Amino acid sequence: MKRRVTLKDVADAVGVHLSTVSRALDPDSPHRVSSELAERIERASRALGYRKNSAGYTLKTNTTRTIGVVIPDITDPAFPPIIRGIEDALARRGYVAIVANTDGDARRERELVSMLRDRGVDGLLLASVEITPDPTRDEWLDATPAVTVNRQVFGADVPSVIADEAGGMTAIVTHLVALGHRKIAAIAGPQHLSTGVLRHRGFLAACEALGVGETPPVAVARGYREEEGERCTETLLATAAPFTALVCANDRLAVGAIAALRRRGLECPDDVAVTGFNDMIMVDRLTPPLTTVRVPKHQMGARAADMIVDLIEGKAGAERTAMLPTDLVVRGSTGRVRVPAS
Amino acid sequence: MKRRVTLKDVADAVGVHLSTVSRALDPDSPHRVSSELAERIERASRALGYRKNSAGYTLKTNTTRTIGVVIPDITDPAFPPIIRGIEDALARRGYVAIVANTDGDARRERELVSMLRDRGVDGLLLASVEITPDPTRDEWLDATPAVTVNRQVFGADVPSVIADEAGGMTAIVTHLVALGHRKIAAIAGPQHLSTGVLRHRGFLAACEALGVGETPPVAVARGYREEEGERCTETLLATAAPFTALVCANDRLAVGAIAALRRRGLECPDDVAVTGFNDMIMVDRLTPPLTTVRVPKHQMGARAADMIVDLIEGKAGAERTAMLPTDLVVRGSTGRVRVPAS
Repeated sequence: MKRRVTLKDVADAVGVHLSTVSRALDPDSPHRVSSELAERIERASRALGYRKNSAGYTLKTNTTRTIGVVIPDITDPAFPPIIRGIEDALARRGYVAIVANTDGDARRERELVSMLRDRGVDGLLLASVEITPDPTRDEWLDATPAVTVNRQVFGADVPSVIADEAGGMTAIVTHLVALGHRKIAAIAGPQHLSTGVLRHRGFLAACEALGVGETPPVAVARGYREEEGERCTETLLATAAPFTALVCANDRLAVGAIAALRRRGLECPDDVAVTGFNDMIMVDRLTPPLTTVRVPKHQMGARAADMIVDLIEGKAGAERTAMLPTDLVVRGSTGRVRVPAS
Repeated sequence: MKRRVTLKDVADAVGVHLSTVSRALDPDSPHRVSSELAERIERASRALGYRKNSAGYTLKTNTTRTIGVVIPDITDPAFPPIIRGIEDALARRGYVAIVANTDGDARRERELVSMLRDRGVDGLLLASVEITPDPTRDEWLDATPAVTVNRQVFGADVPSVIADEAGGMTAIVTHLVALGHRKIAAIAGPQHLSTGVLRHRGFLAACEALGVGETPPVAVARGYREEEGERCTETLLATAAPFTALVCANDRLAVGAIAALRRRGLECPDDVAVTGFNDMIMVDRLTPPLTTVRVPKHQMGARAADMIVDLIEGKAGAERTAMLPTDLVVRGSTGRVRVPAS
């Protein structure tokens, strides 16, 4: 088997004491060795492939320059762009990320936070939080800096980086109203997640502000999954008054909604306009391509990473919360209202 | 600012020497302190939120229980399922992953490997390798165990976990021939990557074995991107004899191919059947849904993770190479040949 080459291996190869090798290879050591011996030690350490154990650094400074990143699931297309933003920004500042997947399970989230703290992470980036605080949270937050990204804990003193969810929903509703839609239904996201709550509040406020008459019919998804978009659409078709537009809390719900409409003989956008949220990979390649809100995921990840490093390094003026702007992306899944619902 | 609570903080709070706290909190210490004092120290350490610095463990055993994972880009949908498999398997064995993105740049790959080794990773999982060995590779492979995943370095003594690329291509060509297709064109993947080479060899061998007559026209993509699928399709339409089926080296190339065909007034599957490779997220939601080869990405990541940990821990019988089976997934993008090309 292979194991890492140690200082002891180098010392044995040269035939000197371990401490001599240590002094020879430490540029800051006040007790230098002769240049001839230093050269022999350097040569042996190169030949053996010795690498300084970064843990030595760790004990001296009490930091590991690692950040724990807790997400629901890396295979959900919403998260890789956030993680890439985190990794890019951390790399610029000499840190790395350790990513852990909760699968949306709050108990597992606590276990993973505990594991990451046991490994000595300097800080935590949390993309998995629910709106209600974890009861054990305050305890560990006192000891380990944390920033939430993409999601927020409501009423908690945890810095966060989120998108302008309400602004995105205002843009969507404004777009639909301009196309003549007045009978607008919605599929809300899970209401234990800040994205679900803030997008839905933004949707209702925009309908009110733009005078969309009736209270919109709403179905609430249990998760951001295609099947939930299908289930909610079936529910709306079965129970709600006819609608000409369907505003979905994210892209995966919209993909499911379009499939369910099609199964019922309703075409998008001719019969029902459908909108998403996120602008995830591939939604520009669907038939029809999806009108959605672009969330600056990479930028959110990068900002959150800078924020946590600022907190760890005690940089003055570390901001508490950042809300990044979103953009409406108009594609083929929305069009001018054709047959006003009776 | 927040910083991690140290043993020193606990010692100061209790009013004892650092070494006393260290002994009190170490269950293996032969020099125990009185139970009354131990209790005071435990209480203070809990109140302050002290966590054992895992670096102490690190120095003792010369391992960090971290694995460096080098990938091209986490936002490419081919990679998150592999990473999830790696993370799940590493977690079971008490390890974590540090992921780094090369963006397909060989120089950057070397820098990242060096950074990861400086951080003391116990091993490397490489999903970014090209078929020709990195000239500096042998040097660091001697010191740091490595396994490649999804891709291989040809002619190198590096263990790897890959998919049965040739088997997948045989299944695709067999399926097309059974549907009556004989004029089959191909978009090959990049030929500096083992996936590109092995899939293309598999395609040619299957055409030969199944008696597909003429040598198939081929365009080679410079990368696994939709735009390259579009460019290669344009080239084939402009220069090759008419074809009724187009075999693409991965799903993203196939998505681009279908778009380029459509722009030229050719519908899939009626005019040209199109196939992908990977079965990435969302390709079942396209119009038409994509016929493709399912690659067991999660399983590949998990197997590679187990393999690297076995190597690190010196487990006997650690396998050198694993090739996991692939499955044909038939969807709407392939159909019986309609209008035989003239």
